[in-house]
Amino acid sequence: MKIKAAIFGASGYTGQELIRILSGHPQVELMAVTSRRYAGVKVSDVFPSLSGLTSLTYSNATPQEIAKLCDVVFLALPHGVSMDIAPVFIKAGKKVIDLSADYRLRDLATYEKWYAKHNSADFFGQAVYGLPELYRQEIKKSRLIANPGCYPTSIILGLMPALKNNLLDVSTIIADSASGVSGAGRDPLVGSLFCEVDGGFKAYKVGKHRHTPEIEQELNTLAGEKFAISFTPHLLPVKRGILSTVYATLTKDITLAELHSLYVSAYAAEKFVRISPAGTYPNISSVCGSNYCDIGLAVDPRTNRVIIISAIDNLIKGAAGQAVQNMNLACSLAEDGGLQMSPLYP
Amino acid sequence: MKIKAAIFGASGYTGQELIRILSGHPQVELMAVTSRRYAGVKVSDVFPSLSGLTSLTYSNATPQEIAKLCDVVFLALPHGVSMDIAPVFIKAGKKVIDLSADYRLRDLATYEKWYAKHNSADFFGQAVYGLPELYRQEIKKSRLIANPGCYPTSIILGLMPALKNNLLDVSTIIADSASGVSGAGRDPLVGSLFCEVDGGFKAYKVGKHRHTPEIEQELNTLAGEKFAISFTPHLLPVKRGILSTVYATLTKDITLAELHSLYVSAYAAEKFVRISPAGTYPNISSVCGSNYCDIGLAVDPRTNRVIIISAIDNLIKGAAGQAVQNMNLACSLAEDGGLQMSPLYP
Amino acid sequence: MKIKAAIFGASGYTGQELIRILSGHPQVELMAVTSRRYAGVKVSDVFPSLSGLTSLTYSNATPQEIAKLCDVVFLALPHGVSMDIAPVFIKAGKKVIDLSADYRLRDLATYEKWYAKHNSADFFGQAVYGLPELYRQEIKKSRLIANPGCYPTSIILGLMPALKNNLLDVSTIIADSASGVSGAGRDPLVGSLFCEVDGGFKAYKVGKHRHTPEIEQELNTLAGEKFAISFTPHLLPVKRGILSTVYATLTKDITLAELHSLYVSAYAAEKFVRISPAGTYPNISSVCGSNYCDIGLAVDPRTNRVIIISAIDNLIKGAAGQAVQNMNLACSLAEDGGLQMSPLYP
Amino acid sequence: MKIKAAIFGASGYTGQELIRILSGHPQVELMAVTSRRYAGVKVSDVFPSLSGLTSLTYSNATPQEIAKLCDVVFLALPHGVSMDIAPVFIKAGKKVIDLSADYRLRDLATYEKWYAKHNSADFFGQAVYGLPELYRQEIKKSRLIANPGCYPTSIILGLMPALKNNLLDVSTIIADSASGVSGAGRDPLVGSLFCEVDGGFKAYKVGKHRHTPEIEQELNTLAGEKFAISFTPHLLPVKRGILSTVYATLTKDITLAELHSLYVSAYAAEKFVRISPAGTYPNISSVCGSNYCDIGLAVDPRTNRVIIISAIDNLIKGAAGQAVQNMNLACSLAEDGGLQMSPLYP
Repeated sequence: MKIKAAIFGASGYTGQELIRILSGHPQVELMAVTSRRYAGVKVSDVFPSLSGLTSLTYSNATPQEIAKLCDVVFLALPHGVSMDIAPVFIKAGKKVIDLSADYRLRDLATYEKWYAKHNSADFFGQAVYGLPELYRQEIKKSRLIANPGCYPTSIILGLMPALKNNLLDVSTIIADSASGVSGAGRDPLVGSLFCEVDGGFKAYKVGKHRHTPEIEQELNTLAGEKFAISFTPHLLPVKRGILSTVYATLTKDITLAELHSLYVSAYAAEKFVRISPAGTYPNISSVCGSNYCDIGLAVDPRTNRVIIISAIDNLIKGAAGQAVQNMNLACSLAEDGGLQMSPLYP
Repeated sequence: MKIKAAIFGASGYTGQELIRILSGHPQVELMAVTSRRYAGVKVSDVFPSLSGLTSLTYSNATPQEIAKLCDVVFLALPHGVSMDIAPVFIKAGKKVIDLSADYRLRDLATYEKWYAKHNSADFFGQAVYGLPELYRQEIKKSRLIANPGCYPTSIILGLMPALKNNLLDVSTIIADSASGVSGAGRDPLVGSLFCEVDGGFKAYKVGKHRHTPEIEQELNTLAGEKFAISFTPHLLPVKRGILSTVYATLTKDITLAELHSLYVSAYAAEKFVRISPAGTYPNISSVCGSNYCDIGLAVDPRTNRVIIISAIDNLIKGAAGQAVQNMNLACSLAEDGGLQMSPLYP
Repeated sequence: MKIKAAIFGASGYTGQELIRILSGHPQVELMAVTSRRYAGVKVSDVFPSLSGLTSLTYSNATPQEIAKLCDVVFLALPHGVSMDIAPVFIKAGKKVIDLSADYRLRDLATYEKWYAKHNSADFFGQAVYGLPELYRQEIKKSRLIANPGCYPTSIILGLMPALKNNLLDVSTIIADSASGVSGAGRDPLVGSLFCEVDGGFKAYKVGKHRHTPEIEQELNTLAGEKFAISFTPHLLPVKRGILSTVYATLTKDITLAELHSLYVSAYAAEKFVRISPAGTYPNISSVCGSNYCDIGLAVDPRTNRVIIISAIDNLIKGAAGQAVQNMNLACSLAEDGGLQMSPLYP
Repeated sequence: MKIKAAIFGASGYTGQELIRILSGHPQVELMAVTSRRYAGVKVSDVFPSLSGLTSLTYSNATPQEIAKLCDVVFLALPHGVSMDIAPVFIKAGKKVIDLSADYRLRDLATYEKWYAKHNSADFFGQAVYGLPELYRQEIKKSRLIANPGCYPTSIILGLMPALKNNLLDVSTIIADSASGVSGAGRDPLVGSLFCEVDGGFKAYKVGKHRHTPEIEQELNTLAGEKFAISFTPHLLPVKRGILSTVYATLTKDITLAELHSLYVSAYAAEKFVRISPAGTYPNISSVCGSNYCDIGLAVDPRTNRVIIISAIDNLIKGAAGQAVQNMNLACSLAEDGGLQMSPLYP
């Protein structure tokens, strides 16, 4: 019997990507997709690419109504909205995979400092951080999964083996990241217009991006100590993809070969993490369209720094794909169910 | 038992796309891929996107050696080269799907006028033109399938129902097409450099493109009369995709609703042709990454012309995907085996 | 003494381009630029590219107030708005260069059929169509210049010599055009988002684009007879540039060499029209950033058709540059004053 | 009387840009441009964008022959080639502006470690490093100017005021840069193909890029001490532009307002350096097409780091524009002669 799934808030790029992936998932039946804006409109009229792949129409149903139709719900909503919707599903005994930031942080004060007041304090802190490579066992048992941010996914996966092995002076970590425009969503903003983005490249929210506390929470946990990082996001003139170039000073002598071998071992059992051959570096165009995270490594003896470069598709491993991976785990399906898409290159 | 396949000439974009599709095909085992340039190199070292998806290494084996390994071979070679290789496989009793132009034309003089001298006259004329929507039954029985060109696929599928219904003054047909750069292959040409293409748009080979006779051959067959068309290819600053905008004067009064309904009927049984809702037009970004051909229609009463717009992914429905569709037919597999990729949008 | 200029509605891409060009024009002083949205904001805060080039601040002044400051005004406003503003300036004795469609048509019924009711009937029909290559002498004497649309500029310049020489069967003219996204303006529309446009290509408003009557008006005038054309605009994933590929059946035998020579002669005195060498075709990337219109030619003896391809930068020769060219003529300045920008290639 | 200039090696993107700029320079006459590959071909046949702007034909003349025609020569040649050509012009009493790396370093051993054996030891060390904002007075008197690399220009200008004011712990400097593809030149390399670059983003030559010693040489000089930096170049899917995001730990408490004010003062007299308003960051699309370097600043109190972001057009301020700026200084012309191009935005 198939798992019954629903998507609450399915008219943005992440929602569309969830529809696309779930429509091809052999063990899942997508029961309902909601959108206030497009209520009553066929999904394939909004997204002609999905014509023939789904016959669903956007619904304006309430969370209570949707809860009756599904076993698991994906919330593809802005932060601050999920916290009002998630409790309805949890109380109805449904599994919730929340793609917003509302349940990612474990410290309420930190959430309220970087975001805003939180309305759902009773469930806050009860979610598992949905990065399977870190929390696979917890995800399997969870009823509330906070799907990680796109930048955090790339940075945490990039640093995990090095931090677990105490290779880094954690006070020196700098993450310089660049994202494709789909990360900004489908809202019609001047800054997301083709003419504003194409041919351009810029940093934004320098030292102030809201993914910072989420990255620090997980890196601190991995390292077992408290520290801050520098994180600078940039906007790339591409549709999909995140590349993070992470710098840190080494605390021990280690060769590239040793570091590479350590990373290969650390991720040997992971289906969705690939370590680039030593001396080569990932390109977002080699992961786009897939759930992969590619990681490349460099050791610079001149400066005693390691440079770790990781690449993901922000809409897949950075959002919808990882959410489906979490659903698979939480619903006891094969972890790669529906996720066997190969990167679309060129 | 799986079908054993091989690809002769697998280092270009079409070859890569064949590897990508066949690696995910549940009924196929890819036995060998050849490349003189990359002999001995792992496919995933040339195309890191395929890391984890194939463990093949490029081989420099002869056609005779490859023939021993496979039931079916894809020739992803330049025209003029296939004609030397295909006979080896045919004589060895293997099915051949040739992606070059060498066997597409049925008239030798036409081939030699637009291309060059043909060396394989004994098999010339024995191939079926591998457009399943036209020649499905013949393809099922064929040992030599000439996979159509990318532009012809888009134009022929766009015009088929109108021609079959004698709606057009065939002397007025003009096909204005635009293709992504992958159509030019992976050879390092100045004209294919990012800086030459990005931000640009231009026509090329105006009135002289070699796909012209192939288009005319099939359109003439459909209409049952001989005529020439105007065909102008353009180079788009995108990686994948072809859009053809085809103009013709109507010979009868027909409304858009009637024309639309005629097209919907004509393609009702086809899995890979989608007719856009009346009043909407296809976008290459809604088919890219998939084997779909989307077709949109307009009737202009001011000029008594029909405008038919069709979109495909040139590497998939325009090359590798159609080749796999042909293999499925020729090998009695489900026609959409390995081809259930949804378009990657955005 | 310098000409005093103002721009009414200067916060869009065309307005910005006018500021950019006029700031570098040695005989012009830009006195005021208006924007309701950005009133009180420095131009260089909205467009950092202009930092150091202009110290102007957007003003919310009325037409009456602006009229006191300037000799000539550019109206970079949507159609339907210009018609309310232009009369104020005309009555104040100022020269008006209107970049909207409000005064381009000479037939009121045609305007109201394709656009909407016109509120300024007393000045309607008094404007000169501001295509210097057609109406140079009239422009010099005019107080109201209707700056042509971007698509019409490319198509009319492309056809002019052929029509003047009666080479074409005018009933067969088809103009297949493609434009960069800046033609859609700086309004935040979903359809202009990077993720909607990049990697895509599509036709829009097939048979219904409002530039059609303007193109037909001028082509009919050139040919001395009434006829309709097919015009299909497409959206290109580039910021700037229009390429028009125009088809028509020849009424006489003419070789490419003869046609080429006729075009070279026809435009010999024109600074901003360049005829591509015979056998080569223009690329929008070779005109972008300049006021040039490049024209290439093909004769196809197989179909007895001519194919004329023209390329412009839609924001310059298709809008702001042509407007400045018109201002130069109307104000007795050198026609290329401020317009000596070379194309930015690559 | 005009300065007579020549370009040796003018068929690449930098050479083309020099032709473009010098053709519009009012005090310069471009006498000759050389190219072995295109000898005898009109420049405008290779670069149709320059049609009407130059009537020059590529020459295959020797350095000795070119030296007779000009007062100043630009060498737009690969490193290792300039060193064979420059001496001819120097000995003939001509001013030489070398755009290669051959004379940028002051330490021969460093050159030979990062590049290759140097053949022109008698002139090595006699060049001035052609960054006008650092060495204006020396450039005015020099006969051999080593035009800086594109990455170094962006990084050195970004760090200069901070280093001069001893604000930084120099051991912590990390420069994370990204460049448009034109930086790789016009050679037909697979890695520069549209399909390899578009939609992609990757790091390359991590810790090993040859611009590193040049950057360190100038930063060490500015700081008055010896240190190494981390420098990671990335390839952007854009034609032009470099953005460098530079990180360093502060040695003193300083607010953003104070730092911003220090930068504004430091560059107050510079025509081609613009400091972004505090809290805003530069975008390469706001400098492309111009000789500007835009610099933005952030102070992160959480990590005690400064983040300095600088943007240039790699072909202009990073190559040809800076070369012309150097020529202007060396030839006693206005420093911005021929360089008053405004950025082409959007």
